[in-house]
Amino acid sequence: MSRDDDIVMVISNAPDLLLAKRIAHVLVEDGLAACVNLGAPVLSIYSWKGEIEGADEIPMWIKTTAGRQQALIDALSRLHPYDVPEIIVVPVIGGSPAYLGWVREQAGGQQPQ
Amino acid sequence: MSRDDDIVMVISNAPDLLLAKRIAHVLVEDGLAACVNLGAPVLSIYSWKGEIEGADEIPMWIKTTAGRQQALIDALSRLHPYDVPEIIVVPVIGGSPAYLGWVREQAGGQQPQ
Amino acid sequence: MSRDDDIVMVISNAPDLLLAKRIAHVLVEDGLAACVNLGAPVLSIYSWKGEIEGADEIPMWIKTTAGRQQALIDALSRLHPYDVPEIIVVPVIGGSPAYLGWVREQAGGQQPQ
Repeated sequence: MSRDDDIVMVISNAPDLLLAKRIAHVLVEDGLAACVNLGAPVLSIYSWKGEIEGADEIPMWIKTTAGRQQALIDALSRLHPYDVPEIIVVPVIGGSPAYLGWVREQAGGQQPQ
Repeated sequence: MSRDDDIVMVISNAPDLLLAKRIAHVLVEDGLAACVNLGAPVLSIYSWKGEIEGADEIPMWIKTTAGRQQALIDALSRLHPYDVPEIIVVPVIGGSPAYLGWVREQAGGQQPQ
Repeated sequence: MSRDDDIVMVISNAPDLLLAKRIAHVLVEDGLAACVNLGAPVLSIYSWKGEIEGADEIPMWIKTTAGRQQALIDALSRLHPYDVPEIIVVPVIGGSPAYLGWVREQAGGQQPQ
């Protein structure tokens, strides 16, 4: 349904800023993402084994193409220390043509793993 | 159109961190959300009765299923002190299968209110 | 495909808070957006001419209608100092009816430029 050059935003969280920066560098260097925004810390609240837990995390908003989405999710899963890190994908349905074109240049095509 | 086990991200804002935490706890405890991220304060700028207003708010990014979406919106509206709180829903079209499965476990099914 | 009264979230980044506030005021005053959230600074990591770069930016989450989306992107591109600012559009598929109605009131219709 989605085409390889559709743009998507992948949202994840890292346990700290140092690791968030390392992940962002790898993703951009390897052409799996055009741009990663590392946000101010968030407090994540969730239930784990029946208890409500809270954890400080660094949110990551990652801009890439649908063609690179799977390779990016695989890389993120490998680089992330959690067993089940949050990784969700949100569609991008428009934007500035120049920016969308830049994302396709930086993170275009569908690479073999 | 959407299926009950589709994942969605619900975005809202709370007037302060204390209330944001209380809302997050209730939503997770009641199985209406799998995970709530409370972000650093944002400055919201909008027009109200013809004047430009600004307000500091705590952003909330809430991960749940489409099946729980309506019950979550209802609960959030009840817990929120504003007459017209921001509550918007953004689709999730992919992600890590383990994480998406975890959201479905935590906040799956369609509950009667 | 999208109807003029569909709600969308436009995501962008400004180089500093002062400019972010100015952009937000113009967008809301001109009826191009119902509400703009200015977030805590993010660190944007990207590749530029083969080098990995980092820049501190202020994220902007802008709520408007599909009917105003193009005029908003045009205004944002004019107000923004970068040649290729990030401007992406994410669909909104639900929410609180009162809030969605308020967005349509504030930023409804399709304006000629």
